[in-house]
Amino acid sequence: MGRWQPNARGRLEQAALELYVERGFAQTTVTAIAGRAGLTERTFFRHFADKREVLFSGAAELQEVLVAAVAGAPQAAAPIDAVAAALDAVGAVMLDRPRSRRRQSVVAANPELMERELAKLAALSAAMAGALRERGVPEPAASLAAEAGVAVFRISFERWLDGPDGSELAPLMRESMAELKAVTAGT
Amino acid sequence: MGRWQPNARGRLEQAALELYVERGFAQTTVTAIAGRAGLTERTFFRHFADKREVLFSGAAELQEVLVAAVAGAPQAAAPIDAVAAALDAVGAVMLDRPRSRRRQSVVAANPELMERELAKLAALSAAMAGALRERGVPEPAASLAAEAGVAVFRISFERWLDGPDGSELAPLMRESMAELKAVTAGT
Repeated sequence: MGRWQPNARGRLEQAALELYVERGFAQTTVTAIAGRAGLTERTFFRHFADKREVLFSGAAELQEVLVAAVAGAPQAAAPIDAVAAALDAVGAVMLDRPRSRRRQSVVAANPELMERELAKLAALSAAMAGALRERGVPEPAASLAAEAGVAVFRISFERWLDGPDGSELAPLMRESMAELKAVTAGT
Repeated sequence: MGRWQPNARGRLEQAALELYVERGFAQTTVTAIAGRAGLTERTFFRHFADKREVLFSGAAELQEVLVAAVAGAPQAAAPIDAVAAALDAVGAVMLDRPRSRRRQSVVAANPELMERELAKLAALSAAMAGALRERGVPEPAASLAAEAGVAVFRISFERWLDGPDGSELAPLMRESMAELKAVTAGT
């Protein structure tokens, strides 16, 4: 067998999440994660800066999906509709609810991880605002539309995690977006 | 002179901010802060848990102001109007722009402080959502209205700090709220 490890990244993510749930985040070492995945620590550090980043590797993908969808929305689309299209795109990739739930239980149990989570969400909002400005949306409309989108995402994501098995994120986000529109309209 | 120190808290805040700006946050010790304020370390720790919390002592006051204003809004007010009333109340207490600007320059220079700032904003949003639920606003409308309010606050606050001397926060928040309403209406 060569040095190439099939799906090393995915195996490390899986092993880390298992151990964080079993033992707690603070009690889990990189050595233990690599061992559980049948890989070396060196391989771990080729993929992740530290054991915290394993939990946030999805944020980069999420950002790409959001930015691409905002950029790809029809030129005539209003800013909030470009944001809604971006949330639809996110809903199409976030499908593994049991895994998201396990991950969230680890993050919610640790204030330091919660703060990192909020920083990642703020970065998503900033990236989306940038993509809206690229479309010619001025400030503060671009940042407000992006913040509205992230608020809808956050609140829908929590409802999704708390909801019944088999429910999907995308319809919840559409519902929350409609609710936000009603709320800001003062109804 | 007795052991009671007039305005010890305010003097410690002032001294800390001066030192953070002069030397950087990481390079400033509690000993130095207490020394600059002419007080003891013991007095420092009677008022603040650590040197980070000095920068966030305003968050508790802000939360009280927001929650009281939401609770005190006319019973017939729509949720978003109760939130707008809360932002007006905040605008009436946040008047010292030079100080806010110095504080923000310290926070922005330090990722750990930025993460703490985001956590405080998330706590403000949660507190405001709670005050809305107390008024009988159901979820997710309560959380969405609160998140919209915090987004308006954040974006207006940044604009205020970047803006010309003598400008006020309250009118910027009213403008941003109007802009958010327009954005979510799809215009």
